[in-house]
Amino acid sequence: MKEMTKIALDAMGGDNAPKEIIKGAMEAVSARSDIKVILTGKEDVIKEELAGYTYNKEQIEVVNTTEVIETAEPPVMAIRKKKDSSIVVGLKMVKNGEADAFVSAGSSGAILAGGQLLVGRIKGVERPPLAPLIPTEKGFSLLIDCGANVDARPSHLLQFAKIGSVYMEHIMGVKNPKVAIVNIGAEEEKGNALVKETFPLLKECQDIHFTGSIEAREIPHGQADVVVCEAFVGNVILKLYEGVGAVLVDKIKGGMMANLRSKIGALLVKPALKATLKDFDASEYGGAPLLGLNGLVVKTHGSSTAKEIKNTIFQCVTFKEQDINQKIKECIQQPEEAAE
Amino acid sequence: MKEMTKIALDAMGGDNAPKEIIKGAMEAVSARSDIKVILTGKEDVIKEELAGYTYNKEQIEVVNTTEVIETAEPPVMAIRKKKDSSIVVGLKMVKNGEADAFVSAGSSGAILAGGQLLVGRIKGVERPPLAPLIPTEKGFSLLIDCGANVDARPSHLLQFAKIGSVYMEHIMGVKNPKVAIVNIGAEEEKGNALVKETFPLLKECQDIHFTGSIEAREIPHGQADVVVCEAFVGNVILKLYEGVGAVLVDKIKGGMMANLRSKIGALLVKPALKATLKDFDASEYGGAPLLGLNGLVVKTHGSSTAKEIKNTIFQCVTFKEQDINQKIKECIQQPEEAAE
Repeated sequence: MKEMTKIALDAMGGDNAPKEIIKGAMEAVSARSDIKVILTGKEDVIKEELAGYTYNKEQIEVVNTTEVIETAEPPVMAIRKKKDSSIVVGLKMVKNGEADAFVSAGSSGAILAGGQLLVGRIKGVERPPLAPLIPTEKGFSLLIDCGANVDARPSHLLQFAKIGSVYMEHIMGVKNPKVAIVNIGAEEEKGNALVKETFPLLKECQDIHFTGSIEAREIPHGQADVVVCEAFVGNVILKLYEGVGAVLVDKIKGGMMANLRSKIGALLVKPALKATLKDFDASEYGGAPLLGLNGLVVKTHGSSTAKEIKNTIFQCVTFKEQDINQKIKECIQQPEEAAE
Repeated sequence: MKEMTKIALDAMGGDNAPKEIIKGAMEAVSARSDIKVILTGKEDVIKEELAGYTYNKEQIEVVNTTEVIETAEPPVMAIRKKKDSSIVVGLKMVKNGEADAFVSAGSSGAILAGGQLLVGRIKGVERPPLAPLIPTEKGFSLLIDCGANVDARPSHLLQFAKIGSVYMEHIMGVKNPKVAIVNIGAEEEKGNALVKETFPLLKECQDIHFTGSIEAREIPHGQADVVVCEAFVGNVILKLYEGVGAVLVDKIKGGMMANLRSKIGALLVKPALKATLKDFDASEYGGAPLLGLNGLVVKTHGSSTAKEIKNTIFQCVTFKEQDINQKIKECIQQPEEAAE
């Protein structure tokens, strides 16, 4: 019999919790019998929601937690104080080996801080990067790091490049992924102090397919599979992507409503346009993994729907099946360490 | 008689030179009699182009230069070696007071380096910031700094905030402009080392209307009039803006061509959509000024058309009329220095 992948899922996190979270879990377990979802959160709320479904009882477990971490709370404090929250309990299950992964649409700060504090890093990983997939003209790229730890050092960025390559190759199936570093020009001598120091390390690294610098303008064109940057810059890229996209789509919708002629046209183009914009929707690809931990922690969008939760759960299964953490160990550690 | 504003214009710079550059100059001088444009570049090429126009000879001067700086050349070296280039000659005219401003669509690197090396900074200005206007949902914001000097210090960012406020108030007519610093969260304790050190300086500054942090997601929504950041981050924001916009518009166009129904719809929405996307086009607002120099240097888009050149020339006139450099001196320097 195939081994089960056990996923702790925060039933309380995100704008659409618990309804869409539980719906996503239901869709995942009904699609695959090798998944067990452990829902953390207020038992009575979860059970009420579960009552509307028929499902294999062995694939769903509820772990009652009495507290909820709100998005506005200072993350580290919240993790320390709210020991019986859906996030802390879920993360501890990963730490203790009771779950292979923890998935949450809740407070980013608490998930990032808690992932590091409670689950712990793989030996040799200096900083666990948060690595969302971003949509591009050609498909998607991995943006690594968008996490909580800013002001990275060159050695951190080198690790991000290696870890990101493992992820893209073995989870997303991109052979020999192209790695580039975010820069303000294409030439090697360009950049800030961090990029200038990191560039030669990436160039010399034998484990990755480094293609040089990438200007921000080229990122949406999909010129690189793994886009390496420091977390402050990564956060700006991720959020500006969302912001420019949202404003532009709004403007276009507004423009289509300008007059009768354009309104009729809008009705005709709408279905085709919807399909196009879906391509540019990050939630198609599941959540953003926090990589390099002793287990897997995935942050999904605050606005996650059932579909994103389901896709994220499948992503966790692939992560386990492909033994990604062993592969990360092998690329980060010296040979004698990795064999330990 | 009203004083003339003298603008040195690089007739050789940009993808559409000399045709669109000279066309822009012609449109500017025929619209206003208080402008004199000094075209720098290859005299024979310029004269051939000018032959197609009728214009007031006193408003156009041609200064022959024999060299052209290419965009791929290392900037500082190019400025030092090509002393008879359209960029170096134009910048020196500003330095010597023969022109009030220099405008070029040529090599960004050469214009930024040359502006600092040849024109020189206003006393007290630590770093001259490059400050383009970026389109937003509500209109536009000033993004300051997108220049060549990365790894800024907190005191530089404080100056950018002050200089940017002067520009937005007196050139763009935004009363009491809202100033925000680019950050990875809205809370005061968030950020990298630079932002954390800069935040209290901005908060204490009496000369600006500081509203706190701005996340990249909010920039396109126009939440701040003056968006302060270090040049590396500014460059990423500016170029990602262009990149996401270009890919999304392409995707939408492609989506409209998906089938016959959508093609008919596309024909109907096209005029309204074109007007909408024009709102989101940075070239409407003219070029990006390099501020804090003893004179004005403006970099326009490499793809500048006559319209952007004309708008940039008008921008230079307002800059002189509003005596922006005196206002920058007053906000940067101690009272005794500004009176010198």
